Amino acid sequence: MTKFTSFCSVCLLIFTFSCLSMASQSTENWRPKVLITDKRIPESGIEILQNKCEVIFCENTSREEILSKSKGVDGILWATHSPLNAEALDAAGPQLKALSTMSAGIDYVDVAEVKRRNIPLGYTPQVLDNAVADMAVGLMIAAARRYHEGRLKIENSQWTGGPQWMLGQDITESVVGIVGFGNIGSKIAQRLQGFEIGQLLYTARSEKPEAKKKYKAKFVTFENLIKKSDFVIIAVPLTNETRGMFNSEVFKKMRPNSVLVNIARGEIVNTNDLVEALKTNEIFAAGLDVMDPEPLPADHPLMSLPNAIIVPHLGSATLETRSQMSTLAAHNILAGIAGERMLAPVP
Amino acid sequence: MTKFTSFCSVCLLIFTFSCLSMASQSTENWRPKVLITDKRIPESGIEILQNKCEVIFCENTSREEILSKSKGVDGILWATHSPLNAEALDAAGPQLKALSTMSAGIDYVDVAEVKRRNIPLGYTPQVLDNAVADMAVGLMIAAARRYHEGRLKIENSQWTGGPQWMLGQDITESVVGIVGFGNIGSKIAQRLQGFEIGQLLYTARSEKPEAKKKYKAKFVTFENLIKKSDFVIIAVPLTNETRGMFNSEVFKKMRPNSVLVNIARGEIVNTNDLVEALKTNEIFAAGLDVMDPEPLPADHPLMSLPNAIIVPHLGSATLETRSQMSTLAAHNILAGIAGERMLAPVP
Repeated sequence: MTKFTSFCSVCLLIFTFSCLSMASQSTENWRPKVLITDKRIPESGIEILQNKCEVIFCENTSREEILSKSKGVDGILWATHSPLNAEALDAAGPQLKALSTMSAGIDYVDVAEVKRRNIPLGYTPQVLDNAVADMAVGLMIAAARRYHEGRLKIENSQWTGGPQWMLGQDITESVVGIVGFGNIGSKIAQRLQGFEIGQLLYTARSEKPEAKKKYKAKFVTFENLIKKSDFVIIAVPLTNETRGMFNSEVFKKMRPNSVLVNIARGEIVNTNDLVEALKTNEIFAAGLDVMDPEPLPADHPLMSLPNAIIVPHLGSATLETRSQMSTLAAHNILAGIAGERMLAPVP
Repeated sequence: MTKFTSFCSVCLLIFTFSCLSMASQSTENWRPKVLITDKRIPESGIEILQNKCEVIFCENTSREEILSKSKGVDGILWATHSPLNAEALDAAGPQLKALSTMSAGIDYVDVAEVKRRNIPLGYTPQVLDNAVADMAVGLMIAAARRYHEGRLKIENSQWTGGPQWMLGQDITESVVGIVGFGNIGSKIAQRLQGFEIGQLLYTARSEKPEAKKKYKAKFVTFENLIKKSDFVIIAVPLTNETRGMFNSEVFKKMRPNSVLVNIARGEIVNTNDLVEALKTNEIFAAGLDVMDPEPLPADHPLMSLPNAIIVPHLGSATLETRSQMSTLAAHNILAGIAGERMLAPVP
């Protein structure tokens, strides 16, 4: 303290100004400004960014707050499903150097617009594949074996038991169809190897040699898959092509014993048609981690169905997965700002 | 028709009588009397028995009805968990030649008493292993990933979401401990092969070489297993040794992130202690297909816990499994009555 006060106040003022000026000019000491749109993301990513950047956070994650706090930042860790579109990019301004989502699905991003502006865009695929694939298998079993209906029986004092009470669908020897055989589809196939299923089918843009070699999976048409599968698992991204692809016409073609699992995006399924198919037992059951709309209102018709297992979009919600997503998104931002290739750039 | 009526009615009468008399005396045409204690068992077993036996059924499956209808029968297909003990054997009488349960667990059978009376006793193991192992994996995922709590959030309009909302336990890289490595334990291990878990531990009376070779499972003490496992799956039969083996002392030693799965018998777990452990977050969650008592009352404390997944004992409840159990039990009975070795005799 004594030492410090020995400098005259004018000297101090000059020194302070020159430092500030250096920081804003030299690339070595420059600390870019990064917005994290949700302060609740795991520490792992926050620490990585705070190490090299000036980090600001949204408090309530409203779109208004996100857009207003975006102004002038160099990078945004977009930890929300709010549309990342021209409006958001305009709000940030032309100095924006890097963007990363904290998700594998990027249906809420106007990728064309981001690319047109030459802003590096990252996302967080793969690190969540295992958690989502686990969720798919869990929903498959829970729906086939009537977990929710079973619980309702207990709640209503209707646990009667008996040799043919509440029989579920067999997984053993069943035909499982995976719609979309990307990283997550492949991880689901890997998990099913121990289950003694009868046959594994899949659809994809083109046949994948490793699907046959590693998992004995057969490449089929969508039409073929929905007609033959006892379990249909949706693992495609939401695109204009896949939006509403599961509708009443498809449910009519599915087997009456079939179980639909959706761990991709709710909008791939026409919700009203699904409710109808489950109500009329056109299909046996559904296991949904995602739905349309989200959040699902408590009084939504889906919630009244004993044969629907509904989980509030927790596919990637594990401690380790979310931590890795946070880390990867942060590294994407740092690389983008530094003008380097991101670890996981949106293709 | 014309041909047939050309016989005189007296001849026909004599023929009919001689046939009936033959049937009741010759061993070839003798039709043993078999009681099926629950008329709702799958047709497959009923048909096999009706083909060779006179089959009678219980209508309401009360113990009184079972005991009264047992009197004088040659075989009983014991499709109930009501005690199969000296009282039941006495009620049937000394002519009883064969018994088979329709279950893998036979804790409700006084095996010593049945053996003392030299009555062949069968059960239905193995045919239900796959279905029960599927249930174990389903409960493991549902409990780790908070399915019930997630549903409650929707029901209570509390689906808030966010990057660290409702995080569950990771299965990837986790340590899974299987308590008891019989047929079902082994089938669970097989299913876990695709899940990228970290380590598989198991307890058994003695080390099983195939557990290591096939599943890289490590033989450990019970103490070791409960301390090190992120998932503890109970797959031992209920015996005097295993009754209440999971109690407050054990829960205190388990990891706070651990998930308990029980697909064996409810009485292996001290229910009050489990409720306490789940309430105080001494363990993370439980997935229960079996519990004590069964049927569980709607207002039981277990039902109030968001971190308990509860299924009303549906481990073997699939169409194919129950049909195979019915078939196997029927064949057990036929073999026992014929004095042949049963397909699945109780060891």
